[in-house]
Order: sequence, then structure tokens, then C-alpha cells
Amino acid sequence: MKFCPSCGAGVASRVPPGDSLPRHVCDACGHIHYQNPKLVLGSIPEWEGRLLLCRRAIEPRYGYWTLPAGFMENDETTAEAAARETLEEAGARIELQGPFSMISVPYVNQEHVFYRARLLDLEFKPGVESLEVALFEEARVPWKDIAFRTVGLTLKHWFADRKGGAFGFHAEDLK
Amino acid sequence: MKFCPSCGAGVASRVPPGDSLPRHVCDACGHIHYQNPKLVLGSIPEWEGRLLLCRRAIEPRYGYWTLPAGFMENDETTAEAAARETLEEAGARIELQGPFSMISVPYVNQEHVFYRARLLDLEFKPGVESLEVALFEEARVPWKDIAFRTVGLTLKHWFADRKGGAFGFHAEDLK
Repeated sequence: MKFCPSCGAGVASRVPPGDSLPRHVCDACGHIHYQNPKLVLGSIPEWEGRLLLCRRAIEPRYGYWTLPAGFMENDETTAEAAARETLEEAGARIELQGPFSMISVPYVNQEHVFYRARLLDLEFKPGVESLEVALFEEARVPWKDIAFRTVGLTLKHWFADRKGGAFGFHAEDLK
Repeated sequence: MKFCPSCGAGVASRVPPGDSLPRHVCDACGHIHYQNPKLVLGSIPEWEGRLLLCRRAIEPRYGYWTLPAGFMENDETTAEAAARETLEEAGARIELQGPFSMISVPYVNQEHVFYRARLLDLEFKPGVESLEVALFEEARVPWKDIAFRTVGLTLKHWFADRKGGAFGFHAEDLK
């Protein structure tokens, strides 16, 4: 059973007039509660060829390594969200260098976007959602302990592009 | 007054423990209702150098011209959303050619993403949300009657890139 966030009445799941998908529709006040994918924004902070990763202090994937990333909030831009998450999770200040990857993850209704970034100093330290934060050169990346497929793909693209001499923009889907 | 979608109790807006922003928090069941930006996906369908635009049959911006676009749904990828909206609004079948623009619109909590696309045939026709659908060469684009700033910016980038001989990826913010 679901309830209407506007009036508190019970809501049914059905296709509204003129629509093509079932929604939570309130028969009491007419409110339709749409559910849409969420944006996850992150960064790829670099310092002299090494990349900054965070070891997660929260579920899902407690103890696994990730790029700093999290849900984009209302009232912010994608760039602001990427910088905010990097500060919150890694205590790291960065200069953003442009979007690098955009990966659809429809089975969890998420869209992951990562920005390339330059770490501004070495004053980083783990935030409350991280156990530790460290810089990794390519050969030392803990590939078997990466938390999310979107992070692993983004790291692989980054190292491949660096080898190729030019950073592109990578869009793909996980299914 | 807002109500909890999980249990129907009244909810207060406050900062949950460990969080930094106010949320709608339910004291009865503990449910936290997060509100995040929505993704709007669209395409830039091309046919022999002309671009397909739709004249809107709905508010906001009734009667103004737009690229086919709309809210991304759960369970789909960005590419699927762009193709679906193009079919729904313009009856147009397309082959996607990759993401072209990503524009944050924080004052309405939206992220707009447009894909370049090749129109597969001329069988397009307006869907229920469009008054008419037509192809425009650059000199004939109704610039003063474009519905949204993200659409105008995307069209300007497209024609500029074509003139320059290469299509890039354009990320920016509207404030």
C-alpha cells in the first residue's frame, strides 16, 4: 500500500489518461507521483598520473573502493554535485576538467556521470562515508575490489584514453 | 503539509542525522523522501542538413518550437529515452549518433541531455503533445519561437559544430 504525499489518502497504481505507463495515482486529490531515474555524480581526481579512490564505509559495497560520487541534489548543477561529493567523501578539493563518462544503469534506475578533475592539493582525508582515501597509479588500482561496475568502466576508459594521448567522452549502458 | 508515501502520516521537513540538507522525514515510520533532479532526454534528428522540430501542443510553452524531448522513465537508458520521446512527440524513427549536449537547469531541478540522430525516413507526424512537426534548415529555424533555452543552445552548438566540421560534446549550466 502506498499513500499520496499531497493528501495522505491511499493511492492505486494505474495508467493515467493520456499516459502510457502505470503511475501512483491519488483518487482523492488527483496527484500523480512520478518516479524517475536518479543522477549519480562523481569525479576522477588526478594527481601526477595517480587517481584518488575512496574505500566505502557504508553499504552497499562496504569496504570496496570507489571514485567519489553520490546522488545529485536539487538546486545544483552536475559540476557542483561532482565537486560536493568529492569534498564530502574524500575531503578533496578539485578543479573540474569536463564530463568524461555517462553510464545508464536501468536495473537500479540510475544514471552515473563522472567528471575528469585535477586534485588541488594533498590535504584529502576520508569523510564519514569513507574508511580511507588514497592515490593509485594504474598498476596498483585494486581492480578486484572496485565497488561498482560504472566506476571500473570509467577507470578503464581513463587509463586507455591517457595511453592514447586524448581524453574523450564515453557514453554507454549497463544491462 | 506533506504526507509520508510509505505510511500516510504527516511528515516534517528537517535535516536527518548524518545528513546536511532538509528532507521530508516521517516520524511515524522513519521513511525519508528524497527529491532529486529529473533527467530530460531528447534528440536532434537530422535529414540532409535539416533538423526536425516539434511545435508544442501542451504547456509550458504551448505553440513554441522544440526538439523532441521529455522525462526519462525508470527502467530505460538515456538512448532509449531519447528515441522513445522522438517517436512519441514526432512519430519519427531515428538512429542515434551519440550524446551531444548536457545542460544543468538547477532552477527547475532538471538535467537536459540531447543526442545527435539521423532521421530514418520522412514518415514523421505530430504526436498528441505536438501541433506540427517540420524540418528546418539553419536559416529557417524559428529562433524567436524556441520553447526552451536548452533547445536553443543545443541547436546553436549543432550548427556551429557542423560549420566547424566536427561534432563535439557540450556541457554547460543555465543559471
